[in-house]
Amino acid sequence: MIKSRAAVAFAPNQPLQIVEVDVAPPKAGEVLVRIVATGVCHTDAYTLSGADSEGVFPCILGHEGGGIVEAVGEGVTSLAVGDHVIPLYTAECRECKFCKSGKTNLCQKVRATQGKGLMPDGTSRFSYNGEPIYHYMGCSTFSEYTVLPEISLAKIPKEAPLEKVCLLGCGVTTGIGAVLNTAKVEEGATVAIFGLGGIGLAAIIGAKMAKASRIIAIDINPEKFEVARELGATDFVNPKEHAKPIQDVIVEMTDGGVDYSFECVGNVDLMRAALECCHKGWGESVIIGVAPAGAEIKTRPFQLVTGRVWRGSAFGGVRGRTELPSYVEKAQKGEIPLDTFITHTMGLDKINEAFDLMHEGKSIRSVVHF
Amino acid sequence: MIKSRAAVAFAPNQPLQIVEVDVAPPKAGEVLVRIVATGVCHTDAYTLSGADSEGVFPCILGHEGGGIVEAVGEGVTSLAVGDHVIPLYTAECRECKFCKSGKTNLCQKVRATQGKGLMPDGTSRFSYNGEPIYHYMGCSTFSEYTVLPEISLAKIPKEAPLEKVCLLGCGVTTGIGAVLNTAKVEEGATVAIFGLGGIGLAAIIGAKMAKASRIIAIDINPEKFEVARELGATDFVNPKEHAKPIQDVIVEMTDGGVDYSFECVGNVDLMRAALECCHKGWGESVIIGVAPAGAEIKTRPFQLVTGRVWRGSAFGGVRGRTELPSYVEKAQKGEIPLDTFITHTMGLDKINEAFDLMHEGKSIRSVVHF
Repeated sequence: MIKSRAAVAFAPNQPLQIVEVDVAPPKAGEVLVRIVATGVCHTDAYTLSGADSEGVFPCILGHEGGGIVEAVGEGVTSLAVGDHVIPLYTAECRECKFCKSGKTNLCQKVRATQGKGLMPDGTSRFSYNGEPIYHYMGCSTFSEYTVLPEISLAKIPKEAPLEKVCLLGCGVTTGIGAVLNTAKVEEGATVAIFGLGGIGLAAIIGAKMAKASRIIAIDINPEKFEVARELGATDFVNPKEHAKPIQDVIVEMTDGGVDYSFECVGNVDLMRAALECCHKGWGESVIIGVAPAGAEIKTRPFQLVTGRVWRGSAFGGVRGRTELPSYVEKAQKGEIPLDTFITHTMGLDKINEAFDLMHEGKSIRSVVHF
Repeated sequence: MIKSRAAVAFAPNQPLQIVEVDVAPPKAGEVLVRIVATGVCHTDAYTLSGADSEGVFPCILGHEGGGIVEAVGEGVTSLAVGDHVIPLYTAECRECKFCKSGKTNLCQKVRATQGKGLMPDGTSRFSYNGEPIYHYMGCSTFSEYTVLPEISLAKIPKEAPLEKVCLLGCGVTTGIGAVLNTAKVEEGATVAIFGLGGIGLAAIIGAKMAKASRIIAIDINPEKFEVARELGATDFVNPKEHAKPIQDVIVEMTDGGVDYSFECVGNVDLMRAALECCHKGWGESVIIGVAPAGAEIKTRPFQLVTGRVWRGSAFGGVRGRTELPSYVEKAQKGEIPLDTFITHTMGLDKINEAFDLMHEGKSIRSVVHF
C-alpha cells in the first residue's frame, strides 16, 4: 500500500475532494504509474454530473494523463520502472478478436471490468479509510499514483514533456485520428467540423495534415473562431446567425455539401445536421461526440440511399500502444501544437476550477500538474 | 407520332388501363425503344399506391425493361437502330460532377426532369386523346414504345434474352451490386439479409459470388426460405419465431454480430435491426429498401461510435452503361440464375394480375411480354 494524493468523486454532481487515498501494489499483468500531469476532459465532467450510466461512485476520475512507471507486477514484460507512459482508456491486447481483426482499435480484453470501475480481476486498487474507491475508464489519472493493466499503457519517449503530451491520451488524438484513421480524408477534400472544443480543434489539425482544401469550422460561440483559424480552418459558421437549418447553409456554401463532416459535441440534432450537410453520392459523416444516455440519432433513410455514409469514431480509431508513440513524435516535431490546447494549468488542489472553467466555456484544456 | 399499347396509371390506387397511347418521335439526344418485356417491381406498386411523393398522374409506370432501339434522335452516337438495350432509371452521362467523381453511380444530369415525370427538355413524349401522360423514373417500360435519353440506356449483347435480362434493369442488379459494389463483401465474411423479395434474393446471389462464409436469410414468410437456400443462404431466421428483438438473435447466432447486413424491405425498424445486428468494431449495414415518405431511421449514436457503419445503396452502386453489360454476361454464363426470379409471365393485358400476385406475396417477379 502506498499513499497517494487524489481528487476523489465521492458522489455525483459534487466537487471533487482532495484526499490521501491508499493504492495497492500492482498484481500480475498490472503496472503502478506515477501521474505527472493530467488533462481535464468533458467526459470527466459528464460522468461527474451523474448522467453517465456507467458512472460508479466513489471513484477517481481522469483519463488524459502522462506518467512514469513506478513498479510492475508479475509477468509484465513490455514496460519497466522509469518508462514514460500515457494511460489508455482503450487498451490494446493484440490477442482478442477485435485486435486481431485489424479493422478496429476497440480491444475488448478488459472492457467488461473497466466499465464497472474495476481492474481485470474484478477488484479495485484504490481505497480510502479502508473502503474501496472505483477506477474510471481504466485510467484514474486524477491520482498521483494509479494502477493500470500493462495493455492499457502506451510507452513513449522520455524526451516528450508529460505535462503536454498527456493531452494525446484523449481529445487531441481523438480529433486527429477521426480525420486521418476513421474518415481517411484525402488531399483536396472539403471538411465541416461541428463544435470547436478540444476535439473539434484537433480535428481541424487533422484536416490540415490531410491537406483538405476547405475546412469549415462551426460553433455557436464565435470567440472560438480565432484559434480555429490559427489551426487551419478556412471558413467559419455560427448557426445562430442563420435562420435556416445549418445543413442547408453548408450545402449552399459548398455547392452540394462537404466530402466529410465531424460531430465533436455530442448533440444528436447536430449529428443529423452533420450527416445531412454531406455531399450526395459520397459524403461521409463521423460522430465523435458522446451523446446523453438514451438519446437517438435520426434521419430519413433516403440520406443514406443517396450515397451518404454515417460512421463513428472512438479514440480516433487509434490503437494506443502501436500508434500513440507516432502522435507523440508529431507533437515533438511541432506538427501537433499542443500548447494551443493548454489554456490553463494548475495544481491538483485547484482541480475543481478546471471543471468550472470548462462549464463556463473559458478553457480548451486545463492541465493539472502533480 | 406512333401508336403504342400501354398500361396507363390514370389515378393513384386504381388498376392500370390498357389503352393505345401516342408516342412522339425522339428529340435530340433521345432514343425510341420498343419494349420486348418488363418486370413488375414493388416500386411501381409503391408509386401506384399514391404514397410516392414524386408520383404524378396520369403516367406510364415500369422501369425494369428490355427492348430494341427503333429510332434515334439527332446527335445520338452511342446507339443505333436494332441495338438491344436495358433502360436505366439511373442515367450515366459521364460528364456531370457525380459521374466524374468516380465515387458514385448517381448521375444527376437528367435527375430533376426525371423526378417530375418529364424528358430533359421539360416535356412528355406520351399522350392520350391529346392530353399529355407523364413518364416514370425516366423509363416507362409499361408501354410497347417508349422514349429515353441516350444516357439512360445500357447497350447489351443481342444474344441475351430480353424477356429475362430485363430483370437486370432493377431488382437483381440492385441486390447483387449492393453486396459487391457498395459493401464490397470479402471472402469469408458473414452476411445477414433482411427480406427475401427479389432484391434480398439477389443479395444472396451477390454474397455467394463474394464467397461469404455464412449467409443468414431473414423473413417473416418461411415459404421464402427454400429458394433462398437454393441461391446460397446458409441460415434462416423467422422473426415471428423469436420473442427477443431480431438483432439480438443474430448477434447471438454469430458470436457478436455479422460483418455485413442488408435491408431489402423498406421498413425503418428493420433498418435499425439490420444496423444493430452488425459486429461491434467493423460491421457495416446497407439500406437498399425504399421507406415510406417521411419515415425516419433511428439508433443510439453509440452504435456508430463503437465501429458500425451505416450506408445505403441505389441500383447497387452500378453505373448502368459501363457496368450493366457485365451483369448481362454473368447471367448468360449462368452465374445469375434469372429463371429463379421469374415466377410468372403474362401479356400486357394481364398486368394488373402481376400487381395482385405481388401484393399477395405469391410472386418473386412477374415478367410482362409485349
